[in-house]
Amino acid sequence: MNPWTKLPPDAHPALALGRRLAGAGVAAIDTPALVIDLDAMERNLTRMAEFAQKHKVRWRAHAKLHKSAALARLQMRAGAVGVCVQTTAEAELLAAGGVHNIYISNEVIATPKLERVAALAQTLHEVQGRLALAVDSAEGVQRLAAAMASRPQAGASIDVFVEIDVGQGRCGVAPGAPAVALAQEIDQHPALVFAGLQAYHGGAQHLRTVRERREAIARAVAAVTLTRQQIEATGIPVALVTGAGTGTFALEAASGVYGELQPGSFLFMDADYAQNERDPAQPQFEHALFVKTEVISTSANHVVCDAGHKSHAIDSGMPRVHTLPGGAALTYANGGDEHGILRAAVPGGALPALGQALWLIPGHCDPTVNLHDVMIGVRGGLAQGRVERVISVDARGALS
Amino acid sequence: MNPWTKLPPDAHPALALGRRLAGAGVAAIDTPALVIDLDAMERNLTRMAEFAQKHKVRWRAHAKLHKSAALARLQMRAGAVGVCVQTTAEAELLAAGGVHNIYISNEVIATPKLERVAALAQTLHEVQGRLALAVDSAEGVQRLAAAMASRPQAGASIDVFVEIDVGQGRCGVAPGAPAVALAQEIDQHPALVFAGLQAYHGGAQHLRTVRERREAIARAVAAVTLTRQQIEATGIPVALVTGAGTGTFALEAASGVYGELQPGSFLFMDADYAQNERDPAQPQFEHALFVKTEVISTSANHVVCDAGHKSHAIDSGMPRVHTLPGGAALTYANGGDEHGILRAAVPGGALPALGQALWLIPGHCDPTVNLHDVMIGVRGGLAQGRVERVISVDARGALS
Repeated sequence: MNPWTKLPPDAHPALALGRRLAGAGVAAIDTPALVIDLDAMERNLTRMAEFAQKHKVRWRAHAKLHKSAALARLQMRAGAVGVCVQTTAEAELLAAGGVHNIYISNEVIATPKLERVAALAQTLHEVQGRLALAVDSAEGVQRLAAAMASRPQAGASIDVFVEIDVGQGRCGVAPGAPAVALAQEIDQHPALVFAGLQAYHGGAQHLRTVRERREAIARAVAAVTLTRQQIEATGIPVALVTGAGTGTFALEAASGVYGELQPGSFLFMDADYAQNERDPAQPQFEHALFVKTEVISTSANHVVCDAGHKSHAIDSGMPRVHTLPGGAALTYANGGDEHGILRAAVPGGALPALGQALWLIPGHCDPTVNLHDVMIGVRGGLAQGRVERVISVDARGALS
Repeated sequence: MNPWTKLPPDAHPALALGRRLAGAGVAAIDTPALVIDLDAMERNLTRMAEFAQKHKVRWRAHAKLHKSAALARLQMRAGAVGVCVQTTAEAELLAAGGVHNIYISNEVIATPKLERVAALAQTLHEVQGRLALAVDSAEGVQRLAAAMASRPQAGASIDVFVEIDVGQGRCGVAPGAPAVALAQEIDQHPALVFAGLQAYHGGAQHLRTVRERREAIARAVAAVTLTRQQIEATGIPVALVTGAGTGTFALEAASGVYGELQPGSFLFMDADYAQNERDPAQPQFEHALFVKTEVISTSANHVVCDAGHKSHAIDSGMPRVHTLPGGAALTYANGGDEHGILRAAVPGGALPALGQALWLIPGHCDPTVNLHDVMIGVRGGLAQGRVERVISVDARGALS
């Protein structure tokens, strides 16, 4: 069965563009544009679902990648228990798009935002859904409890994960006693359900060698194990440990400690992750997200395309130029907000002609998607494929 | 007179947010959010207008910075002859917002886009406005001429600037003979008006010392002078040379060759431009654009705020933390898409508390604005000010 068939239509402006482009060849896609190779994306999705099933671990797709309710629903249909997001607005927008199991895997502190979190918990409760939030401070727990208690309708509760810093040095309390204190604090508030530990090691995802990643996640697992033991010694069960990303998830899955994986990038697979030495324990993922661009200026030694860093994020390096069969091998240099400068990968190599379409593999997919209103889904490959559907980036710019 | 008073109201979502926030103190601004210090911005605008008047040079504000019709109209009210943009969609959206003198200072090659350019030239012609475009290839000129000729209503023409590469190594033909050939090509098409030379040296803008910038612009001026002479020797007048940016415009203004300046960034003044050694010939501009953020996590040696690189662009370096009177001096390190990691600028220095608001000065304003739907205009400073209006980023994401 085509997993798309039961999905509701995507919202404007994707709907309008989808109607115009449906069935058109890739040549009809105006540039610069974000394009999904649907076949590659669905293969990535199947590989992830099979991995989770084989290793008997839950997976919760990180929707900060695609910010799309349609793709979140597709992932849940393939077996994901729900999605992670990073902001309150992302949660609201995906919930509005029919995604009813959402974990804000981040701290929310401002009271107006926590009131929105509480309202969303109530909304999801009413549709048999569920909302969860991460915390790393007693004040955050108390503010959340106050927001939940101030709701006019009682009845809803919210799952709360204590975030521990397992090596990234960003958010999270230290493993051990500080996490125990937070679990006890959560346990005192009737509308808060202590759901377990958030233990994501962001810094480990992009360590290049398998050995470095294995060592980093081994330390994370030790920190989680210690913390879980100390919390459970107080009589509070730790129902779930959740974390992991596309760079490391086979390690967390094998740990016996993590019960839920949170990878996002595997779906699209960016140029940066592709530079990691692959762990044979993980499935091989394919690049599925591209920026279609076009040559707008030529000269003897370089050409210029119409995709600059307003079209793709460069925080994790420049995009790679995807070489189609028969195409010239090119390197991409930053040409500013609206331009990329392309040179032959080998001296004297061929350069594309004025007006020629090219395909870029973004260095980092998450912030690249956030630059676009829509993703154009192509079936049948980038060379000969046709537009099947246009997918709305529902939570684009949903920062707060 | 308050220059805002005659402006039409900003469009949704700015309108809705503006109604909710109008008159509120800065504390009411949810984070992360893009905030304009209107007083500082208007001082920057006045300084630029006075500079142009004093030096008897036209200025055409680059709207790729703010992508806002309201700010474009404000700049034209202050004396700008019109705006530059970089994409066809930016031109369409600003025209729809009442901006009627627009120069797409970039190459447009795809025929469907050139048909939109021709349609916009017609639309602006009907309201006594004007559209211009840059070219750097004979094929580009011919395609533009074909698009203009295919319009059902005749009568409109379009100004065409030949772009020459004056040292950036991006778009543009070489100075001299190739530019002469293009001017002659343009001159053959009745709907195209050869308007002069586009001679922007992007690479010179961020050279740190005045001396380096002076040398780079001297070379640009020499290339322009040579090219202009060669074109005029064929009997085709070069009506205007246009170029320059916030880093160098005093040099182009003093050249006697450039008749029009295209600076954009001076209006908001980003952290990167502030690192240039200041040319005393240029006005001193103030930082006027900030990302308001909030501390969401604290620990012994750092705190984490809710503004990562989905809130501000980092292509020109990390944002600087703006220190308000009595505030702690902090440094910003990248914490990923949704987080910034803040440390005391001096070892052992004070760290802000959970929930505290902070203000970031973006490294690069143009792509930062493009991440946001609205800019919140504050009057009376960041510490004690009030929201005066919310300005729509009309052309956010208008890539094509």
